[in-house]
Amino acid sequence: MKFRLGCELEYDVAENSVFIFNVGVNQQHQTILSESFVVNSHLEYEEFTAPHEGNRFQRLVAPPGELTIVYRAEVETAYRMDNPDLIEEVPIDKLPPEALVYLSPSRYCQSDKLGRLAFSIFKEWQPGYSRVTAICNWIFGHVEYLRGSSDQHTSAFDTATERAGVCRDFAHLGIAFCRALSIPARFLSAYAYQLQPPDFHACFEAYLGNRWYLFDATRLAPQNGLVRIGVGRDAADTPFASIFGPAEMKRMSLLQRFSFE
Amino acid sequence: MKFRLGCELEYDVAENSVFIFNVGVNQQHQTILSESFVVNSHLEYEEFTAPHEGNRFQRLVAPPGELTIVYRAEVETAYRMDNPDLIEEVPIDKLPPEALVYLSPSRYCQSDKLGRLAFSIFKEWQPGYSRVTAICNWIFGHVEYLRGSSDQHTSAFDTATERAGVCRDFAHLGIAFCRALSIPARFLSAYAYQLQPPDFHACFEAYLGNRWYLFDATRLAPQNGLVRIGVGRDAADTPFASIFGPAEMKRMSLLQRFSFE
Amino acid sequence: MKFRLGCELEYDVAENSVFIFNVGVNQQHQTILSESFVVNSHLEYEEFTAPHEGNRFQRLVAPPGELTIVYRAEVETAYRMDNPDLIEEVPIDKLPPEALVYLSPSRYCQSDKLGRLAFSIFKEWQPGYSRVTAICNWIFGHVEYLRGSSDQHTSAFDTATERAGVCRDFAHLGIAFCRALSIPARFLSAYAYQLQPPDFHACFEAYLGNRWYLFDATRLAPQNGLVRIGVGRDAADTPFASIFGPAEMKRMSLLQRFSFE
Amino acid sequence: MKFRLGCELEYDVAENSVFIFNVGVNQQHQTILSESFVVNSHLEYEEFTAPHEGNRFQRLVAPPGELTIVYRAEVETAYRMDNPDLIEEVPIDKLPPEALVYLSPSRYCQSDKLGRLAFSIFKEWQPGYSRVTAICNWIFGHVEYLRGSSDQHTSAFDTATERAGVCRDFAHLGIAFCRALSIPARFLSAYAYQLQPPDFHACFEAYLGNRWYLFDATRLAPQNGLVRIGVGRDAADTPFASIFGPAEMKRMSLLQRFSFE
Repeated sequence: MKFRLGCELEYDVAENSVFIFNVGVNQQHQTILSESFVVNSHLEYEEFTAPHEGNRFQRLVAPPGELTIVYRAEVETAYRMDNPDLIEEVPIDKLPPEALVYLSPSRYCQSDKLGRLAFSIFKEWQPGYSRVTAICNWIFGHVEYLRGSSDQHTSAFDTATERAGVCRDFAHLGIAFCRALSIPARFLSAYAYQLQPPDFHACFEAYLGNRWYLFDATRLAPQNGLVRIGVGRDAADTPFASIFGPAEMKRMSLLQRFSFE
Repeated sequence: MKFRLGCELEYDVAENSVFIFNVGVNQQHQTILSESFVVNSHLEYEEFTAPHEGNRFQRLVAPPGELTIVYRAEVETAYRMDNPDLIEEVPIDKLPPEALVYLSPSRYCQSDKLGRLAFSIFKEWQPGYSRVTAICNWIFGHVEYLRGSSDQHTSAFDTATERAGVCRDFAHLGIAFCRALSIPARFLSAYAYQLQPPDFHACFEAYLGNRWYLFDATRLAPQNGLVRIGVGRDAADTPFASIFGPAEMKRMSLLQRFSFE
Repeated sequence: MKFRLGCELEYDVAENSVFIFNVGVNQQHQTILSESFVVNSHLEYEEFTAPHEGNRFQRLVAPPGELTIVYRAEVETAYRMDNPDLIEEVPIDKLPPEALVYLSPSRYCQSDKLGRLAFSIFKEWQPGYSRVTAICNWIFGHVEYLRGSSDQHTSAFDTATERAGVCRDFAHLGIAFCRALSIPARFLSAYAYQLQPPDFHACFEAYLGNRWYLFDATRLAPQNGLVRIGVGRDAADTPFASIFGPAEMKRMSLLQRFSFE
Repeated sequence: MKFRLGCELEYDVAENSVFIFNVGVNQQHQTILSESFVVNSHLEYEEFTAPHEGNRFQRLVAPPGELTIVYRAEVETAYRMDNPDLIEEVPIDKLPPEALVYLSPSRYCQSDKLGRLAFSIFKEWQPGYSRVTAICNWIFGHVEYLRGSSDQHTSAFDTATERAGVCRDFAHLGIAFCRALSIPARFLSAYAYQLQPPDFHACFEAYLGNRWYLFDATRLAPQNGLVRIGVGRDAADTPFASIFGPAEMKRMSLLQRFSFE
């Protein structure tokens, strides 16, 4: 499928500030047909890509005044699903070394504190893809999607009891449950087709069979409507913009021309 | 029923320290037939009773050296149970004013954060005594009683997810659920008949019908085997000993002669 | 000094809801010259006063629709200050029993976790009134008063590190420090003369010498411009309105006629 | 300098369990002269090394029974210190991309919540090596090294207020402060010469000038007496053993023959 997508971000910069953007789509498992990253005033920027995860960054120093960046891309994705009944959990001794780091607890996914809860809910499930589906179903059924109910400090440990949150909280809880059950899981930021209201989306990936499979406990977007941006341990690794300096976001809009053929 | 009970506490005191003990049984809903509170070296102490809750305190200043206190009592309790099906929750507008304070969140019972969880589990239950029983059953079924799994900072918010604890954690979680459902609930420390190993016990009371009813989610002691000591918002209000100064407990033993006729 | 003060609160009530207001001024240490509590539609309400603390409550059941309450009072206060140099901390063994409960940690004042911090900052201070003043000065100097930086779940343990908050956070931290140093301390809600913007105010009281002394780490109002409403362990005990049911506040205004002679 | 070092770990394994050890010394910045990793019963194991950080792992499946591993190595380190006055902090826009991940908050280092505290204490310091030294001095002066005062869930946010901990807590707080000040910082597990009692040690590295510099806020070992094992975001990344299955450690001893020439 082909998607046209993008975003426009506008900031008020009080003093020289460094911005690191992660809005460009990931080149793993999808093909960029065309792409542009435009900064107002033709400010110079540097690009680099994280070697493993493929997250792509633009770094720049913005002078005082207004900063606007516009990102646009045409992307072809190759969403592929396998027979869920045949996708198994991978025993720890067979996991590829690079997946092991996604078993550790992280800032927003304290899997070390969720072990008993995860076992008590999910221990009876057949290990495999269907167990991670069960995790998503449980989150969908027990956590209310409610804007304003959580903030940037909210973690899976909070959501497990507070039972309300937004997409990133749903993803964090899913990740924490997976890790507690010894399934590697990682956070994914994404452009989501027809997400209402338009916004960056968050979901997660679990390592099963012999690759990372996508899961979205919010059910807000079709799985094949997601275009991957950044992956990491949790939201701390994948902000669409990290700002170092006194700057404030004035406007963010996801391009409406998001479409597919 | 008549109980013989008591405790022996021994401390090493490095410098002058103030001790406030709350080991004497409560005179509400039970009758003290005989009682003694003995401090070694005939140290002077002061006694007072909290006007509402009836908690009884001994306060003393211990000089450096060893401090031993021995408490013994013969108590007649009048455990009374009513037909659970007839015990209703009290609408907020009918609650006696003195019960209202037991609706507020407290140090270890953050009912303000447990509202959604409480509703999602217990909203279908018929309000009344049986709903608090359902809370206890849920705790018994979902939280493992495990010495060493919690400490003095552990709160209901932790136990809701960590799913392990001891009697005080079971009580805190029961209280927090009740308050979240607008049922006044309070902590109770007690002597418990044949508790193994012998120790002070903790359970809770909920205000239903027109009085406080006892609940114990641990199922470690028969309800009619509990002798009431202190009531309060949570464990912060009812330590068997508050110590102000450099002193250390060396030994605690619950008298083995605990018996009943 | 005489004050004219009051508030007007307006709610949208979706279904029958119970309201418990604590907006009426406390009769301890101040004299009510005249007072009115008016509910729209002449809804009936019940009044009661907490025996120790003197907090005054109005309880009512509001039917669906709009609920408005208007409270007005003329109050004479007798602010009295003593020579700070002569106000001493009270040894634990000399504290009146009713003050002891204000040594315990509470929902928002986890003094049990702040002991080392309190000692490390304040141990060198001369015990007494000036040490509590030092606590207030420290908070004023180290915590930024910033609307929106905290929420209803924020506690002293958070504020100790996050270093930003509003009046209730300043009070909670002050209380937690006092209790950690074995000084009884309690939360006070108040009408504050010329507070900008007009709002209910929060400060705290510490038990020193032989009475409760007022402290306000925010420096937002003159001490003799505070009119006492509710006292309790922390903000959990003294909301100006507790609502049980689906109702939402539409408007709150503190009467502008607050004046004094 | 040359070190002889090692460890001996013994476990009781109840059922087949996977172990991942990270006890082998890192090959970055030090040279292994000789080395052995011996597992009892000649159990097979797999070895791999994390590409960036150089952490070295042994993975094995242990059958029920006793598992003992003995690791020994002779290592030559080349501790190098530069003139502290010439070591500068690196502006965000000049940081090598691989250092950026060490600016993000992690499980035990919630730098997102420590910003104001870090600024209030360290903002006046000259940026550079000496500012990280100031962080270490502050931690050494304000946090008590006390075995048993913290546990495996304790994080920098706790230690900032609780003011007690062990080496890993000292490291976590140092890391969190650095990241809050936009200095990349990472956790380091190490063998420490003459550490008493012998144990694995934890300290941290900060990215300054153009490389990672070692810091140890505990002052328990000389900097040139540390032999590097694992680096990561925090203790979650660098356990000396990760165990998946019902196994229990029975004994751990650091080889006493640790020596140097």
